[in-house]
Amino acid sequence: MREQDFISRIRTAVHTRNKPLIKGIGDDCAVIDYTKQTFLLLTADSLAEGVHFKRKYFRPAEIGARAMAVNISDICAMGGVPRYALVSVGFDKKEKQPFIDAVYKGMLDYAENYGIDIIGGDTIGSKSFFLSITLIGEIEKKRVMLRGGARAGDSIYVTGLLGDSYAGLKVLNKKSRDNLKPFEYLPVKKHILPLPRYMEGRMLSQSGLVNACIDISDGLAIDAGNIAAESGKGAVIYWDRLPVSVSAQKVASGFGALRRRGLRTAVYSGQKQEEKV
Amino acid sequence: MREQDFISRIRTAVHTRNKPLIKGIGDDCAVIDYTKQTFLLLTADSLAEGVHFKRKYFRPAEIGARAMAVNISDICAMGGVPRYALVSVGFDKKEKQPFIDAVYKGMLDYAENYGIDIIGGDTIGSKSFFLSITLIGEIEKKRVMLRGGARAGDSIYVTGLLGDSYAGLKVLNKKSRDNLKPFEYLPVKKHILPLPRYMEGRMLSQSGLVNACIDISDGLAIDAGNIAAESGKGAVIYWDRLPVSVSAQKVASGFGALRRRGLRTAVYSGQKQEEKV
Repeated sequence: MREQDFISRIRTAVHTRNKPLIKGIGDDCAVIDYTKQTFLLLTADSLAEGVHFKRKYFRPAEIGARAMAVNISDICAMGGVPRYALVSVGFDKKEKQPFIDAVYKGMLDYAENYGIDIIGGDTIGSKSFFLSITLIGEIEKKRVMLRGGARAGDSIYVTGLLGDSYAGLKVLNKKSRDNLKPFEYLPVKKHILPLPRYMEGRMLSQSGLVNACIDISDGLAIDAGNIAAESGKGAVIYWDRLPVSVSAQKVASGFGALRRRGLRTAVYSGQKQEEKV
Repeated sequence: MREQDFISRIRTAVHTRNKPLIKGIGDDCAVIDYTKQTFLLLTADSLAEGVHFKRKYFRPAEIGARAMAVNISDICAMGGVPRYALVSVGFDKKEKQPFIDAVYKGMLDYAENYGIDIIGGDTIGSKSFFLSITLIGEIEKKRVMLRGGARAGDSIYVTGLLGDSYAGLKVLNKKSRDNLKPFEYLPVKKHILPLPRYMEGRMLSQSGLVNACIDISDGLAIDAGNIAAESGKGAVIYWDRLPVSVSAQKVASGFGALRRRGLRTAVYSGQKQEEKV
């Protein structure tokens, strides 16, 4: 079952009724009425061994840091400030204590940098290691950026270079981190620890200029499609205007995947089409 | 590594600083300042296949219901009302869709009965199936029941019969559910789906008569020890006054474990001692 299908099924099955709930499933975070001026933002993201990372190329502290970073990123995509985290960790009874301590230390240090308090969680036995984090943040009511606010004529912007993280993953699946070429450092670094767009999220939300925002995790086409679908609009993306780093291009050409030119992608409510222009 | 040791390590390593945080790690729920009159309660509890349940004796809907029930129970232990849940689910790509749908339906129906909105979550690939739920509730500020409030001279009460759930697990590990003796039904039912003490929690918190409260999950001795430790007090438990069902006694005697009499257990700051009286 594809994750997107599963989420659609859940969304259809779920009925909400608590009055303070502003936004449930279907955005980067759920939104709940909080103080007079602010909303609470709530998000949950997990990291599982073998699926999201391999120990072969992730250091333990990086696993903890990344699990926290991807959650922070969801809060930032709505313009908010992260505050509290609950952390569930699953590991085998035979797991070595220094590994778990190092994962936790990486997570705590990372959370500390963003002023996040770890306020609870759970440890469970599990055949393979996973970290499941629920992060709670706060946002001024007038400033929250949702997926569904895009209007006709809006321009699409991204806050960084596209494809580096995936290029990094391709490199890591092929070779050791001790043996990287200079142009491989940046993609690998971005895959290991993506930088949450904290200042960007705050500045964009405070500017009042942004109608819709999303945390790209499944690629630009899918996530622009999510904005389009939530907003009841379409979107056109021009391949030749995408910001792609020289590093990512070099990695891609090394894998025989040349950057396609002369193509544009039209995204209508999550349906991707390609046309020659 | 034992869970208790791990939690102690985390607790020592964690520094909190967000001002609205009333209570972090160390109680059934974390407590955050919410409205003028109320606190938010936050808890996270997970259920993993092979560790917390086996498909052999759990029906899919019961897995979902139980995962929700154990979280609701934490909110009830502080006297609160459950409101919102974020659900992370991990399963193998080859997992059958009807199984996952049934688990989810069990969880949603159960949540619905308690007026809980599912507001978000995450699905991840995982070698073994797990459900990790973060539940958020609400409680009147003056009425919250913490672990640390016990005073010298307090009596200890439980809201139900002790040991049934464990007796049920022993039965389930030995035989099929289609083949139970009459006295085995109750223990098995209580193991499959423990009943959160919703009304009890509300009534006890509203009464203003309760100084400390806890959700028993690790057995009375350990959890009375947790109250004692958090309150800086000791506790004495008399074996012969424990409420144990006839069913649990029958199951226990079938396993050669006779109920011990003439013993009392003294719990001082989590240290268990037994003395003859």
